[in-house]
Amino acid sequence: MGNKSVTQCLSGAGLSHFFEPQSIAIIGSFREGFFGGYVVIKSLLNAGYTGQIYPINPAYKQVLGLKVYPSIREVHTKVDLAIIMINAQAVLAVIRDCGDKGVEAIIVVSDGFAERNQEGSRIQNEIVTIARERGMRIIGPNTAGIVNTSNGLNPCPYDAGYYKLRQGSIAICSQTGMTNPQAFPYPRMHLGISKICDFGNKCDVNECDMLEYLEKDAVTNVVSMYLESIADGQRFLEISRRITTQKPVLVLKSGKTPEGARASASHTGSMAVDDRTFEAVCRQAGILRLEEFDEVFEIPKVFATQPLPEGNRLGMVSITGAIGVLTADEAVRYGLVLANLTPETTDMLNDIFPGLGNVPVDIGPMSVVVKDLPVQYPRILSALISDENVDAVLNILWADPGGYMTDMYLEAYKELGTRHPKPAATWIYGPDTGIVADLAEPLEDLGFPVFSNLKTSIKALGLAYKYAQIKAERTP
Amino acid sequence: MGNKSVTQCLSGAGLSHFFEPQSIAIIGSFREGFFGGYVVIKSLLNAGYTGQIYPINPAYKQVLGLKVYPSIREVHTKVDLAIIMINAQAVLAVIRDCGDKGVEAIIVVSDGFAERNQEGSRIQNEIVTIARERGMRIIGPNTAGIVNTSNGLNPCPYDAGYYKLRQGSIAICSQTGMTNPQAFPYPRMHLGISKICDFGNKCDVNECDMLEYLEKDAVTNVVSMYLESIADGQRFLEISRRITTQKPVLVLKSGKTPEGARASASHTGSMAVDDRTFEAVCRQAGILRLEEFDEVFEIPKVFATQPLPEGNRLGMVSITGAIGVLTADEAVRYGLVLANLTPETTDMLNDIFPGLGNVPVDIGPMSVVVKDLPVQYPRILSALISDENVDAVLNILWADPGGYMTDMYLEAYKELGTRHPKPAATWIYGPDTGIVADLAEPLEDLGFPVFSNLKTSIKALGLAYKYAQIKAERTP
Repeated sequence: MGNKSVTQCLSGAGLSHFFEPQSIAIIGSFREGFFGGYVVIKSLLNAGYTGQIYPINPAYKQVLGLKVYPSIREVHTKVDLAIIMINAQAVLAVIRDCGDKGVEAIIVVSDGFAERNQEGSRIQNEIVTIARERGMRIIGPNTAGIVNTSNGLNPCPYDAGYYKLRQGSIAICSQTGMTNPQAFPYPRMHLGISKICDFGNKCDVNECDMLEYLEKDAVTNVVSMYLESIADGQRFLEISRRITTQKPVLVLKSGKTPEGARASASHTGSMAVDDRTFEAVCRQAGILRLEEFDEVFEIPKVFATQPLPEGNRLGMVSITGAIGVLTADEAVRYGLVLANLTPETTDMLNDIFPGLGNVPVDIGPMSVVVKDLPVQYPRILSALISDENVDAVLNILWADPGGYMTDMYLEAYKELGTRHPKPAATWIYGPDTGIVADLAEPLEDLGFPVFSNLKTSIKALGLAYKYAQIKAERTP
Repeated sequence: MGNKSVTQCLSGAGLSHFFEPQSIAIIGSFREGFFGGYVVIKSLLNAGYTGQIYPINPAYKQVLGLKVYPSIREVHTKVDLAIIMINAQAVLAVIRDCGDKGVEAIIVVSDGFAERNQEGSRIQNEIVTIARERGMRIIGPNTAGIVNTSNGLNPCPYDAGYYKLRQGSIAICSQTGMTNPQAFPYPRMHLGISKICDFGNKCDVNECDMLEYLEKDAVTNVVSMYLESIADGQRFLEISRRITTQKPVLVLKSGKTPEGARASASHTGSMAVDDRTFEAVCRQAGILRLEEFDEVFEIPKVFATQPLPEGNRLGMVSITGAIGVLTADEAVRYGLVLANLTPETTDMLNDIFPGLGNVPVDIGPMSVVVKDLPVQYPRILSALISDENVDAVLNILWADPGGYMTDMYLEAYKELGTRHPKPAATWIYGPDTGIVADLAEPLEDLGFPVFSNLKTSIKALGLAYKYAQIKAERTP
């Protein structure tokens, strides 16, 4: 294979066999347990994958109603994707078989490679050599694999409870299985996912390939990543700079400290990049940096559903004043300020209840005396969002066990509808986490992102503002 | 009343009528709803309060099986505590009645005072004048009140679902109702509470009084506070310096920024203190500062149940390597370092599985191949905790839907017992938040604090280490 075709095969476009396979071979054990080939097949079937599934293992005849083949050589139709979960030492032979069979996409779930020891490194390098020779692409090794919600492709190797992920526009890419369905509570995150990819040791497919693939992926409109290293800084910068003009890219990078970098080496065998260098790359590329693990999942929600704010003036409704104070402090960190309402809005709100007409709009005092609160509340919310001095809205809800407030909130959000002109973030608190979750779900179904804590809800709006600025700078 | 007795009555010891009342008068509306006197009585009855309850309202005869009195003057036995929830304008007359009746402790739940407008300020000042004259203490106004879990004193004025709070050693004091049972999910926080106090506008009882009271409160062994202002800096410093030699004091202070300070003025009518001044006070007083709202509830758990670490060397077990990298980065922020295990522990762990013998101890690779993991896991955990190079342990658990891991963890923690020599913090992740909660509960029942995210679990151990240093410096 000449240089040109190697370059072609290394481009992000080459990832379609991973995410849109018509047929998948699964090479591993089919014993029931919390990990392995059995789990992968069960997960695929449950997720509604309708392509061909070829279990491969000489020791089995059948698994979950599917015929098991002794070798991939015995499969007589085309195989787009192979998922390998066998002992590291046995992987090379299977990859050669896959090459002979013409499989172009391989996920090596097995561990025990560069992250383990020198022998593992040697095998990993050999895998890459074979793949390059045969024009195959490899995800992993040491990966929990990938997900595509569009076609039921959820070959999760760990028991994740076999639920379906909701389809959506958020892509999650990562150097850890911690972002895969067995680890993160996606069911709680009601907004949907487009793709997930755990690069593992990223011997071949890396963040640059994924960014190229996701750039052209019509269903993805925001990319959120956890990285320990950058495979190719220059390429990363170029691709990122291009994709961020269209889709926001969020990155949590660990291994910032020497201690973290050392831990990274033994985790995925990767060398951490100097944090100041990475910071400079992010600034040039228009990448938004994250600081905490949960943010990888939570912050994209604002981009997936909300318009970008046109300025930094934060409107806010709450039923408790303390949250207003905490918010004001936190907002400053992300370049936001509490909005000064127009005289019209101020008067209108003060007419509803004395003192209501300034941000944070605190409905606490009125809530215990005003009898038609459920009538007034949607008016308050709507007035705030419509105020020309307000660019984004933070709404704090109290999930009361009696349901008086929760019913009111739900009705108000329905009235607001999914098409509102400014970004809104919601935080819900209350004594019963079940009631909080029960309110969050229908609000997110209506298209309003709900965040799991106050800080993240503010930061989401702050980063949306930052991204709006980045986009504006790039557009002539 | 002479000066001397005023001083006496202003001391923290004067708060026993609030927290240990034999009888309570409740002055408010007894209409069913999410707020008011009806809710207070229902909450007290549900929490198992066994003292006398006197509902006061001329418009009612009976509420929840209790006789309603038209005025507190009609109650012919002693009343220790009055809880007032009526219109601000009507409060003064009732307080005078309470004075005549000899009530020494009053909680004014009503709002519309200094936080609202000048007229409110005027009434608030008059309340204080009357209280000083009559030797009464006031909590509030504009407060969600107090809790004492030792005697079923949970007069929550907002519908909180009427559950019982677990008894424990954590005191929560605050300038917001957001720390009271209607707002925070205490049921999820399995470790117990001793006292809760919302100071509201703190016209009289403030953080200094509470610290004095809690200093002598035998069941409290850690104090966690949310403050917007400090009533008396010098007194706060003196009391804090004394109490922190015995009990850790954690403080989240908002109003750090000019924006936050302005919001604070309209919330509790209080003037924010300059943040650099406050930082200096905390350093001198040995106070541990918090940064996020949830930390007010989560961080104290480590102090309530765990011994203090004797050094900063963090041992760690996880089933995922990425968390080790993130932890290493985060640990540095709080003065912790990943421990270097002794050669003995290293060898012992490497004998169990190659490469297991260094921190972070990653059981991920072995978990999919080692068949007797449930036998080996307690050995691993115990070896790590016993290692002389380890001062504190962070344990990361995967709540797998199949229950293979969760059963193993629970058994291992039972073996470890409640009496282990070093502090341990646990974070549990997994795809199903219900399964995560179901594992957290028995672990906390065994005395091991479980934190809701990775960062907080590390920070809790970091602050425990910091407090250990503070204590050591003070002890000759």
